[in-house]
Amino acid sequence: MVACSLIRMTRRSVVNLVCLGNRAVSLLYGNSFRPLHTSVCNSSSQPKAGFKPGKVAVVTKTTRYEFEQQRYRYAGLSEEDLKQLLAMKGSSYSGLLERHNIHTNNVEHIVKSLRREGIDVRVVKRGEYDEKVVRWADAILSAGGDGTMLLVASKVLSKDKPVIGVNTDPERSEGHLCLPVRYTTAFPEALEKLCRGEFRWLWRQRIRLHLEGTGINPTPVDLHEQQLSLEQHSQAHRITTMDSQRRTGTLHESFSKPSLLPIRSLNEIFIGESLSSRVKLKTFKHHVNLLLHRASYYEISVDDGPWEKQKSSGLSICTGTGSKAWSYNINKLAEQAVEEVLKIGKFLTGLDIPLNHEFVEKVTDEYNESLVFRPGDKRMFYSIREPIVNRVFSSSRQRGFANKVCVRSRCWDACMVVDGGTSFEFNDGAIATISMSEEDQLRTVVLEN
Amino acid sequence: MVACSLIRMTRRSVVNLVCLGNRAVSLLYGNSFRPLHTSVCNSSSQPKAGFKPGKVAVVTKTTRYEFEQQRYRYAGLSEEDLKQLLAMKGSSYSGLLERHNIHTNNVEHIVKSLRREGIDVRVVKRGEYDEKVVRWADAILSAGGDGTMLLVASKVLSKDKPVIGVNTDPERSEGHLCLPVRYTTAFPEALEKLCRGEFRWLWRQRIRLHLEGTGINPTPVDLHEQQLSLEQHSQAHRITTMDSQRRTGTLHESFSKPSLLPIRSLNEIFIGESLSSRVKLKTFKHHVNLLLHRASYYEISVDDGPWEKQKSSGLSICTGTGSKAWSYNINKLAEQAVEEVLKIGKFLTGLDIPLNHEFVEKVTDEYNESLVFRPGDKRMFYSIREPIVNRVFSSSRQRGFANKVCVRSRCWDACMVVDGGTSFEFNDGAIATISMSEEDQLRTVVLEN
Repeated sequence: MVACSLIRMTRRSVVNLVCLGNRAVSLLYGNSFRPLHTSVCNSSSQPKAGFKPGKVAVVTKTTRYEFEQQRYRYAGLSEEDLKQLLAMKGSSYSGLLERHNIHTNNVEHIVKSLRREGIDVRVVKRGEYDEKVVRWADAILSAGGDGTMLLVASKVLSKDKPVIGVNTDPERSEGHLCLPVRYTTAFPEALEKLCRGEFRWLWRQRIRLHLEGTGINPTPVDLHEQQLSLEQHSQAHRITTMDSQRRTGTLHESFSKPSLLPIRSLNEIFIGESLSSRVKLKTFKHHVNLLLHRASYYEISVDDGPWEKQKSSGLSICTGTGSKAWSYNINKLAEQAVEEVLKIGKFLTGLDIPLNHEFVEKVTDEYNESLVFRPGDKRMFYSIREPIVNRVFSSSRQRGFANKVCVRSRCWDACMVVDGGTSFEFNDGAIATISMSEEDQLRTVVLEN
Repeated sequence: MVACSLIRMTRRSVVNLVCLGNRAVSLLYGNSFRPLHTSVCNSSSQPKAGFKPGKVAVVTKTTRYEFEQQRYRYAGLSEEDLKQLLAMKGSSYSGLLERHNIHTNNVEHIVKSLRREGIDVRVVKRGEYDEKVVRWADAILSAGGDGTMLLVASKVLSKDKPVIGVNTDPERSEGHLCLPVRYTTAFPEALEKLCRGEFRWLWRQRIRLHLEGTGINPTPVDLHEQQLSLEQHSQAHRITTMDSQRRTGTLHESFSKPSLLPIRSLNEIFIGESLSSRVKLKTFKHHVNLLLHRASYYEISVDDGPWEKQKSSGLSICTGTGSKAWSYNINKLAEQAVEEVLKIGKFLTGLDIPLNHEFVEKVTDEYNESLVFRPGDKRMFYSIREPIVNRVFSSSRQRGFANKVCVRSRCWDACMVVDGGTSFEFNDGAIATISMSEEDQLRTVVLEN
């Protein structure tokens, strides 16, 4: 109780409450900390009370070392083969092992620090992380990079259960959604600040998804999961949709009513050909062909506007948080492009538009900054990726802000991917309603560096 | 011999030569028609002699009907299930069957027309198309859309063996690389014009690929092929690279010398995470994760310039032919983006830059047209797709023309895809040299509509 004894000296009244451990906290606030939450919503400053969860689930990423081990084991190769193969690929076995150990040590450090504060900790591999774990925990700690953070967040439906990301390999991953990297190895400090209330709550607005019509399969598939769970995966995709429907005789009118998916998107929804067919039907080559060669066909309606046919390399719909991620890379302009546009403008008008590097850079920066918006923003930003324009397909608006986007799939083997991590089938006849709701905010922590 | 008798009346001297059928043609020109070729290179006008091959291979696409049949048969479903499933997906079984029959009838029409001219015809499914077929034929006819045309062309290494595309479903596919659609149902007319020399040869410059280093597998994989050849495919990827190397004990220094791949690219080379791992090791979910979520890491050197680290959603290197295809969609700007750039420019300079629709449209068109170049152009155009810029990765030039591009893979499970149709592994330690050579032109036919 180092952290808390320190705190007692500083702000006894508050701290006595929050440091009584989980039972007391539960009695006073309930596991969902609603009062705390409200107190913060009313003030944009730091919380009046500190925060100390009684039960914390630590969800750990799969390291590349673990990944390579699994895949080569699957291919029937020995540890020796793995070493040779990695050497061939220019990456050293010992190097991967080192990164793996760094991650493992950081996780240990975090878990120890939590237990030292009398917090009940459960360590879960990302593959084992599910709704039960979420229900059990007062707060969930993602131990990995942004990918892990996104998956962890996607399953937390309450806006009161905090999700905190710790970057367990700061040298190698950016971890924009995680705490400042110094807390990775100084986690007790982070705990103290939480206890003292020396932090800010940040509610990140997320996206919810309704699916209706045919050609869908609401069984989510974790794209990050490893080989080990391949069987469940094929099941989710092959068996569920078809055979089981034939058994239950619901092949015709299955999933006709809109259903809210049990997942929220923190970064973006991506719709496109095609991530499931290869698994569902194992037509890999055709599949790859779809992915690389064939565009996605769909109809889109923005804010209840008219339906518009589209053909493109997919469709991205992002949050403010996601506006700095993939969506940014889809939409940002290079100085080169901006310079060429200005050159053409200058040539056509004869006006004295400057083309020096400073100016081009300034225009480029302004343009690209305009693509980023606040994590709390209640609007979504949609981008039609690499639109294909021909007689049939319009490209009136390539992107823009929206409160509601409806998409009707005309794809053969498409799916909808939430935060690059979870996939849902989304084929001909399926309709997705993508929107935002006040309740879908994600509670995260902002700590000063 | 209708077509040719017509011709005799018009241009006896020439026609007697070209209409003697394959044996005579071979004697005079050889199967490669070199003299003809030269005569055309010297004149940009129509050929002095007509063209009539003795042996034509007709390579047919796989229709969606055939595809759906194969995949559902693979999933153990009956014809009845297929009908129900397609209905669920909003596409009718009879509709697919109709498209399939249209294609089949057009192929029949083409084959009959050729045989009526005494031409020796071999009809081959795209899955069966290989080097032997190419060697046998004097000319190769692709019966499908652009996808089929690209695959057919990729295996023709000689610049003297003509490849002609016929669009067998004009209502549904664009077929930019095919003859004008009216010849699909009036193929004898096309033959007459060829015979009479009423056409232009168009030599389309292609890309060649050298691979060296480790982490590669020069066994090509046809991404378009169907389920039926799945076994070969897995073999190409799983067995070849590893087990066989272990058997031969070449695991260490395999593929260290540069090897020229037996394929030419008519549209583009795309390098990126990751199209082979899912097949090689069946780690679908991780794979998808790589594809969607993880960027590609590589180093690039343009025209023997310095190596530069890159991180992006892949790298595309296209020909003049390909500059109208995927590369165009990767690079083109929407009016919306151009308008915003001009707006910012206007705001920052205070200059009276017009922002009316006509002007924005004009700038946009000029910009996008500048992305397209001639099919015969000896230069390549590279595009770094959705580059990711951070402390480590520069984005100095996002795209440009080049005579030679070298790429060093830093990917985990990447591959190099030729014309969206053929895939090669391209992982850590692999180096690709991408260039153009005079010999790699593809001989195609231009017929007026």
